[in-house]
Amino acid sequence: MPRPVSPVHARPGAGLFVSLEGIDGSGKSTQAGRLAQALVAAGHDVIQTREPGGSPGAEDIRRLLVSGAPDRWSAETEILLFTAARRDHLEKTILPGLARGAVVITDRFADSTRVYQGCARADLRQTVDALHDRLIGRDPDLTLIIDMDPHTALTRGLARQSGEDRFEERGLAFQTALRDGFLALARANPQRCRVIDGMRAEAAVAADILAAITPFLPQGSPA
Amino acid sequence: MPRPVSPVHARPGAGLFVSLEGIDGSGKSTQAGRLAQALVAAGHDVIQTREPGGSPGAEDIRRLLVSGAPDRWSAETEILLFTAARRDHLEKTILPGLARGAVVITDRFADSTRVYQGCARADLRQTVDALHDRLIGRDPDLTLIIDMDPHTALTRGLARQSGEDRFEERGLAFQTALRDGFLALARANPQRCRVIDGMRAEAAVAADILAAITPFLPQGSPA
Repeated sequence: MPRPVSPVHARPGAGLFVSLEGIDGSGKSTQAGRLAQALVAAGHDVIQTREPGGSPGAEDIRRLLVSGAPDRWSAETEILLFTAARRDHLEKTILPGLARGAVVITDRFADSTRVYQGCARADLRQTVDALHDRLIGRDPDLTLIIDMDPHTALTRGLARQSGEDRFEERGLAFQTALRDGFLALARANPQRCRVIDGMRAEAAVAADILAAITPFLPQGSPA
Repeated sequence: MPRPVSPVHARPGAGLFVSLEGIDGSGKSTQAGRLAQALVAAGHDVIQTREPGGSPGAEDIRRLLVSGAPDRWSAETEILLFTAARRDHLEKTILPGLARGAVVITDRFADSTRVYQGCARADLRQTVDALHDRLIGRDPDLTLIIDMDPHTALTRGLARQSGEDRFEERGLAFQTALRDGFLALARANPQRCRVIDGMRAEAAVAADILAAITPFLPQGSPA
């Protein structure tokens, strides 16, 4: 349940930047689509996007990240490529969307890098943070963390057969560490993070997400 | 003419890391090839490489950097992509080459990023340096800067018609600023930098380069 924290970043006309985060197979993409549909139906200007990718250049970088052998890139190179893609995504899609007053909904953002690299290469956390501070410098106004038991999530994720499954091949222990990482991140960032129980029916999760976002939407907004 | 500075980084068996730098059209690539041939003929183990690129992954990143519209990437994204490519190049080509004791000759390295971005976006110099310190952390043992009048260099560069000419389309004023940048870099790094007069016949330039590298080669080396 969302806590009654005032949405400090939400200003009428300034747009709203929302990310969905969670372990692989937690239903982020499905819920991002449902949220976008619900907000459009309520009359909002909505941009639905994703990472890695979300702009033509960033999608090109995504192809480098998700294709080839799993050890194609070192963790350091991967962080640089993710940050390059994120910078392009921010410049070309997110910031222009916010400037026109839209609600920008992204399936993953910097928290994914923080949590994935925090689990895979904890020694690089300072590097991740330094790159973010210097070259991204912005976090979402609201981050919805879809929390789910890794057994269930892993089964869903592998069943999706998206062809871009290298992040879903890491197994249960890694997904459990990721879940803990996302929950720790939520505790450390209570102003912008809301944990959503993702283990219920899709419509119930969607309703919780809509309830969580409502206080962040502009005053008198139709949602 | 090379100054009599002791080659502090050269240790027998540890390889030698050499970069060629200079403005577009200064003959770096030609001279890198001649130098590699001369050292191989003298019995050295030589790896000739280039940036951006120099490893399979870095060559993929290079294709993103040199194709598309000139303003496809912001300066910030470009710096991240160059650093990603350099990290892969370092890990996959340069460090393994040095570990086996080879002379690694690269056509461009981090100095190109420093000087190009220093001319195009001087405000990003700290970002360039911070990324280098954190994610590359190594400069060549010897950097040969081929110095050339930009009028001549520009004509040569455009005549090459390499198909990857976006760095050669910037015009004379920019190339003049680059030349000044490389010369300032040489003054600031006298231990590892040697300025070579590139305005003479190709063979004379090659002879100067061979003279400059000789004190850096392992003792009793055949070159």
